Amino acid sequence: MNSQTDLSGLMRTHHCGELRESDIGKKVSICGWVNKVRDLGALHFVDLRDKNGLTQLGFEEFKGDLSILKNFSLESVVKATGVVRARPDSAKNPKMETGMVEVQVTEVELLSKAEIPPFLPHGHIEATEDLRLKYRYLDLRTKRLQDILKMRSDATRTARETLYELGFTEVETPILYKTTPEGARDYVVPSRVHKGKVYALPQSPQTLKQLLMIANTDKYFQICRCFRDEDLRADRQPEFTQIDIEVSFPTMDYMKNLASRMISRLFKLGDNFSLKAITYDEVMERYGSDKPDVRFGLEHMNVTQTFAGSGFATFADVAKEKHGLVKAMFLPTSTATLARKDIDALTEVVKPYGGKGVAWFKVEAGALSGGISKFITPEILASLYEKSKEKGDGLWFFCADKNQNIAHDCADAVRRHLGKTLKLFNPDEYAFLWVYDFPLLDVDFDTKAIGAKHHPFTMPRLDQVELFMSNDLEKLAACKAQAYDIVCNGYELGGGSLRIFDNKVQSRMFEVLGLSPEEAQHQFGFFVEALKYGTPPHGGMAFGMERLVMMLTKTDSIRDVMAFPKTASATDQMSGAPSKPNEAQTRELNFKWLE
Amino acid sequence: MNSQTDLSGLMRTHHCGELRESDIGKKVSICGWVNKVRDLGALHFVDLRDKNGLTQLGFEEFKGDLSILKNFSLESVVKATGVVRARPDSAKNPKMETGMVEVQVTEVELLSKAEIPPFLPHGHIEATEDLRLKYRYLDLRTKRLQDILKMRSDATRTARETLYELGFTEVETPILYKTTPEGARDYVVPSRVHKGKVYALPQSPQTLKQLLMIANTDKYFQICRCFRDEDLRADRQPEFTQIDIEVSFPTMDYMKNLASRMISRLFKLGDNFSLKAITYDEVMERYGSDKPDVRFGLEHMNVTQTFAGSGFATFADVAKEKHGLVKAMFLPTSTATLARKDIDALTEVVKPYGGKGVAWFKVEAGALSGGISKFITPEILASLYEKSKEKGDGLWFFCADKNQNIAHDCADAVRRHLGKTLKLFNPDEYAFLWVYDFPLLDVDFDTKAIGAKHHPFTMPRLDQVELFMSNDLEKLAACKAQAYDIVCNGYELGGGSLRIFDNKVQSRMFEVLGLSPEEAQHQFGFFVEALKYGTPPHGGMAFGMERLVMMLTKTDSIRDVMAFPKTASATDQMSGAPSKPNEAQTRELNFKWLE
Repeated sequence: MNSQTDLSGLMRTHHCGELRESDIGKKVSICGWVNKVRDLGALHFVDLRDKNGLTQLGFEEFKGDLSILKNFSLESVVKATGVVRARPDSAKNPKMETGMVEVQVTEVELLSKAEIPPFLPHGHIEATEDLRLKYRYLDLRTKRLQDILKMRSDATRTARETLYELGFTEVETPILYKTTPEGARDYVVPSRVHKGKVYALPQSPQTLKQLLMIANTDKYFQICRCFRDEDLRADRQPEFTQIDIEVSFPTMDYMKNLASRMISRLFKLGDNFSLKAITYDEVMERYGSDKPDVRFGLEHMNVTQTFAGSGFATFADVAKEKHGLVKAMFLPTSTATLARKDIDALTEVVKPYGGKGVAWFKVEAGALSGGISKFITPEILASLYEKSKEKGDGLWFFCADKNQNIAHDCADAVRRHLGKTLKLFNPDEYAFLWVYDFPLLDVDFDTKAIGAKHHPFTMPRLDQVELFMSNDLEKLAACKAQAYDIVCNGYELGGGSLRIFDNKVQSRMFEVLGLSPEEAQHQFGFFVEALKYGTPPHGGMAFGMERLVMMLTKTDSIRDVMAFPKTASATDQMSGAPSKPNEAQTRELNFKWLE
Repeated sequence: MNSQTDLSGLMRTHHCGELRESDIGKKVSICGWVNKVRDLGALHFVDLRDKNGLTQLGFEEFKGDLSILKNFSLESVVKATGVVRARPDSAKNPKMETGMVEVQVTEVELLSKAEIPPFLPHGHIEATEDLRLKYRYLDLRTKRLQDILKMRSDATRTARETLYELGFTEVETPILYKTTPEGARDYVVPSRVHKGKVYALPQSPQTLKQLLMIANTDKYFQICRCFRDEDLRADRQPEFTQIDIEVSFPTMDYMKNLASRMISRLFKLGDNFSLKAITYDEVMERYGSDKPDVRFGLEHMNVTQTFAGSGFATFADVAKEKHGLVKAMFLPTSTATLARKDIDALTEVVKPYGGKGVAWFKVEAGALSGGISKFITPEILASLYEKSKEKGDGLWFFCADKNQNIAHDCADAVRRHLGKTLKLFNPDEYAFLWVYDFPLLDVDFDTKAIGAKHHPFTMPRLDQVELFMSNDLEKLAACKAQAYDIVCNGYELGGGSLRIFDNKVQSRMFEVLGLSPEEAQHQFGFFVEALKYGTPPHGGMAFGMERLVMMLTKTDSIRDVMAFPKTASATDQMSGAPSKPNEAQTRELNFKWLE
């Protein structure tokens, strides 16, 4: 933002970070916060700060009473008018953008005198996170957080322009809407007019955007607030923002092209960028995760059959099980080596995922040693070498379990752990994936519970409708969905699906998910009815705005990318929300608290 | 949106409204809704409709089984592939954009067969508004509503780009926030984690955007959802959208320049457009309203002194009162005349505003007649002529009351009524005003109640701080605010103010408004504290998005400009929200309904 392109009528002529040698001789006015005051006896200097930077004020030409400077406490707000002068050579500061010049003040005004703040918003801040959240407006004065807010604003601008250019219409959907059980809890709003009834805040505008397709909106998007009353983890917030998209008459190719275009624009990757596609099955096989970090290798190998009937009973037993899985990873010595204690520490890495330990052995100058090396026959070694892209000296790791999900999770945890601790990737790189062919359903063979893997509006793959109509759990579990995720560096940036557009298929989905016809009618009756009056094939996706901005700004904290975040207990430390309503309020809403 | 600029992978090559003679010979695929089917024995035609228009499908080159057309019920969704042909001359339709061509179908697919819908979304729709709201997705299929949604999307895009160009950052503020009494009722959200406490949905992000100025964001905007649990009128909705703006270091000039720029861009008025400024006092004097429609004359004249001590006792008595007011309007015969019954009907016009009637007399060929003509002495007539821009033949109207507010309101109602019924303005014209110098406070001299005219964060005019510090009601009532409204054709499009940035002035404001120090601390303590640590002078404004789009699209119904509006009782007819939560839900939120 250059002052010259702004509208007239601001109290300043320039920003504090803007003045250069080319401005020498100009009369300027600047406004900002007192960042530093130096009183060198005869000489006085004030560093004035605004969002754009710092300018040094000098007072050698000042005719007024210099005692005013006594009131310039740190963080006070000041307006200064004066002439831009070159600094004396001895005072030039090439590290500062405005370090060649200073403003010799002729008039100065103390606009707002600051009391001593709980912490200063520059340099190294010692304050606890609680204190910083309570005084969020001070923390936000830091250049780092203001820069992040700006980058977030820029990213939403880019996302919108990308979609506008492709003919999308932004449509706002209601926030006061109907309560629907979507896995996470709804926030509800008691109605004053309709006693005993509630609105729900949307977990996403899923049905509404599908209704817009039925309504012939053709291409919809919305950058919208979503709400989930979940037990919070460090990276969750009760409200968050998504770039929400829906299109009529798409194919899977269109959805991938659209996601590629969005990613390309947001991450400035150029027009030829296209997401690398990989199936769910392949990504699970190679990484044990549907959102792998592919900036580094250490890929998984399925070595279950290698150990079937082998002398290593632990693995041989796993190989006998229907859903048993043995996964291997190979870390070449040329990449990194691990000390024994680091190898042993892997047990702790897999524990949270239900793993009991990580088997391993070492190859050094062709000789095997350590761990399970005594069970590794030449035949087994040959089989391992056959599966491995790399061979020779290095460390082999194994995760095995009769429940393949546990084996995947543990091997994924080991891979991520080694990737991070051994710094196997370039932190400045972005590695994107388009993961597709997800399972349609989450089937728990033990409890026989069936859930939607993506959500209950996701279309089965057309060649697998037969599996979907079956009541056999194995067949249902094998049924693939027309669903996809956009993955970057181990995180899901977004995802979506083609949707069911036939009311009979939709009703079957509710049946498979265990909703009685009455429940389905009560919850989704209006939606299923809407499918009857001519519904175009449609599909969509959503990107999580916070994760996107965290990725763009390379921060690990979701609180960094929100202006006014809440704590893990969903409290706003600054305003004290939530707070006790007065009794008149609850009475008017016709409810009372339980004791 | 041209198909050629789109990404590949859609099921169609062209939109239905897109084909022209230049496309003749091309093989195309189009998708859409069956708008009309004609079976002329040997010839079959289907009109296919999408958001962009209609295309006629012919079946003369179709090799398949034509009996498929029996399933093409109206509103079914169809994909057709074929070759664009010129229509025979006899079948050309110049009224239709695609009327010179047709698609001779070679392949056709029924994607979604429609049941008979409750109403058809084209032509004249007979359905009641309730039915249209229940099947909103059908009503939204009409070109009119889709066009409005598109214009709304375009307007938000223009608003954002205008602000981005001026260096503004869009910042999202929380929707789950703190309950604050701002005149209208909060919607509240019970917290599951903090039993007995609630979040409130923001009526506007007022304190949050001010905190962003304290946080050095410099120039903020947000196109944000706001919530008010008011008793609904036809033109109110429980949630609405505003373009919310805040700037640091502005003058009133900057705010006016900014508003002018926004209006100029949104209404395409060119770079030289500047809002016409008028003070609150003047606008009240001339129009009796702070949001007048200035597309026509019929301006008010203050004739109180003309009747002081006159023989017309009714007006003479009003003139004696401290707050008494007599207003006159003159309607020249050359503009319009009124029949006697239309003059008498004005009594009904002023009744809702507390008026007892409208006095009048007629001037015809220089002679006075009718109404109060016998009281109009040559001196009074001379005085009236002195105040009037126009004279000669015509009708004079008078509204008088010892409470000037009632006189203003009645004269305003008469002026608006005559403007509308006599069609005194061009409905295609937009006439904008910048109204400023509003009173700071709303003072009720009878009850001695004091409210904020704009809101409690508005800055008094700097030359009137003395009035503001006084405890005299007349002085407080006379104190002007640094507040302004943007008015168009009788509606407030937006408004704002420079804000209090001194915590002592802010505390004084709470005191004037009757908040005890404890209440002020409880509600706004964190905000008043924030003002202590260096607060820049700042100000802002907000535009009502729905009113803006209603103005741009020339509709009188707020429901037209929202995708999924609620009824006057805040119900969503389509989904049935609000709805009864299940008991587990309320139990978990720790409340129960009162019986």
